[in-house]
Amino acid sequence: MTKKFTETAPFVPIEYSYEIEKILYKGQSKFQKIMVFENPYFGRMLILDDIVQLTERDEFFYHEMLTHVVMHAHPNPKKVVVIGGGDGGTVREVLKHKTVKDVYFVEIDKKVTDIAKIFFPTVACSVENPRVQIVNMDGADFVKKRPSDIDVVIVDSTDPIGFARSLFTRKFFTSIKNCLTNNGMFVIHSESLLLHKDIVIEVQETLKKVFPKVDLYTAPIATYPGNWWTFSVASKKPDPRQMKRKFSIKTKYYSDEIHHYAFLPKGLYKKLMQRKLKW
Amino acid sequence: MTKKFTETAPFVPIEYSYEIEKILYKGQSKFQKIMVFENPYFGRMLILDDIVQLTERDEFFYHEMLTHVVMHAHPNPKKVVVIGGGDGGTVREVLKHKTVKDVYFVEIDKKVTDIAKIFFPTVACSVENPRVQIVNMDGADFVKKRPSDIDVVIVDSTDPIGFARSLFTRKFFTSIKNCLTNNGMFVIHSESLLLHKDIVIEVQETLKKVFPKVDLYTAPIATYPGNWWTFSVASKKPDPRQMKRKFSIKTKYYSDEIHHYAFLPKGLYKKLMQRKLKW
Repeated sequence: MTKKFTETAPFVPIEYSYEIEKILYKGQSKFQKIMVFENPYFGRMLILDDIVQLTERDEFFYHEMLTHVVMHAHPNPKKVVVIGGGDGGTVREVLKHKTVKDVYFVEIDKKVTDIAKIFFPTVACSVENPRVQIVNMDGADFVKKRPSDIDVVIVDSTDPIGFARSLFTRKFFTSIKNCLTNNGMFVIHSESLLLHKDIVIEVQETLKKVFPKVDLYTAPIATYPGNWWTFSVASKKPDPRQMKRKFSIKTKYYSDEIHHYAFLPKGLYKKLMQRKLKW
Repeated sequence: MTKKFTETAPFVPIEYSYEIEKILYKGQSKFQKIMVFENPYFGRMLILDDIVQLTERDEFFYHEMLTHVVMHAHPNPKKVVVIGGGDGGTVREVLKHKTVKDVYFVEIDKKVTDIAKIFFPTVACSVENPRVQIVNMDGADFVKKRPSDIDVVIVDSTDPIGFARSLFTRKFFTSIKNCLTNNGMFVIHSESLLLHKDIVIEVQETLKKVFPKVDLYTAPIATYPGNWWTFSVASKKPDPRQMKRKFSIKTKYYSDEIHHYAFLPKGLYKKLMQRKLKW
């Protein structure tokens, strides 16, 4: 490797380096550093504040798994809020559901979306869809002022370090609960079960203080440090493990089978929450 | 990070770098370069030919999952062959099964075991057990000359590049089948389902030419590139997905629940083998 991009995993002394074939963009928004480069294996890669956000080759794992579990566990998701996810990948997945009438796409950093439209057209392809309302503001402020009319909230933020930390607090989770309808559901990614087990537990415990139903599922994502990536899901009523709606959309990884497979087996989950997993 | 060890993932342009707190050993055997160093998070790490073989912190994922699936799917494993696994971790797990009378520990490179005894005492702790016969020779030669009296063969080799390539061939798999009893089972690790899908398919297809039953399961291993690590299991009769024996040993990750959870869901497995997984 001659030219490369190196990412230091949060909290763990490992670095991941990716060969840079060509740098396509390098800049700074009001909120963060933004870089796009081409890797010979992963294709184009989006980097925010030196952390890999997505690669063309494997972004579908994250976006499908963040989106479709709640969207199938909810009986009839019509109004959906996506907080973060400036690249548009989550919005693209949400719009695959015909029940959806309105998507509030709340991204604090407009520049991420502008860059994604240029360099990741297959990811950002749906942000101009008439069902989407783009709102460039802090997601925490958005949900605070919202009436209780939302069916699903999806948080697709950067890691819970830096300015996204406020999106992992009890206060924020309470605001989300307050803007949800009676069947409302919520999902947020919560780091690696291998490398960041304590963060996973913390997010789960905080969610349990706010929501009656909380659960955890995972997906394999090679370009996120520690890889065995967790998604924390919370619900006012529907059981996240049960699909309320038939699987009929086009995906690469998610399916009705994967919906069930993705959830931690109950014994393993119990051991995790009792802090009995020794790794 | 000041001093670090960098591993290039086989076939994929990613590098993984680990902070070196202290180098404990650096040498060369007849077969390979050997290094042991201390990392502040993973503890001691064993490196062979610049590839991470194990870390003190997470080695149990690999050793437990390589060993206990076949050992529970077989109704009564008495004679077990471990090929490779010079560090002793797999032998340690095999000996947890009281049914086991003889373990043939076939490691071509004695030096790896000598180093492991010094620097990884909790891993190499069982190699001197009276039930273990250490055989320092090529595993392919060992199975070629063996009568059909073995219950389980476990291959714990380095990656299928370099001198371990011969352990991933139809010829070798046929020799293994020939030394197994009628209920005989065999398992070999087969790289990452995320980064080395074609190798996984190839190993599975080659096994299917030799064994009537072949299946695939996975485990999350943060220090193996691509992480979603696969194990290819083959059997002359017992179904690898079914546990024939009660789970009663002490483990950190493997359990009866994990036995079932580890296998790829059947639809995903079918898509993989039909080369329909698009990643």
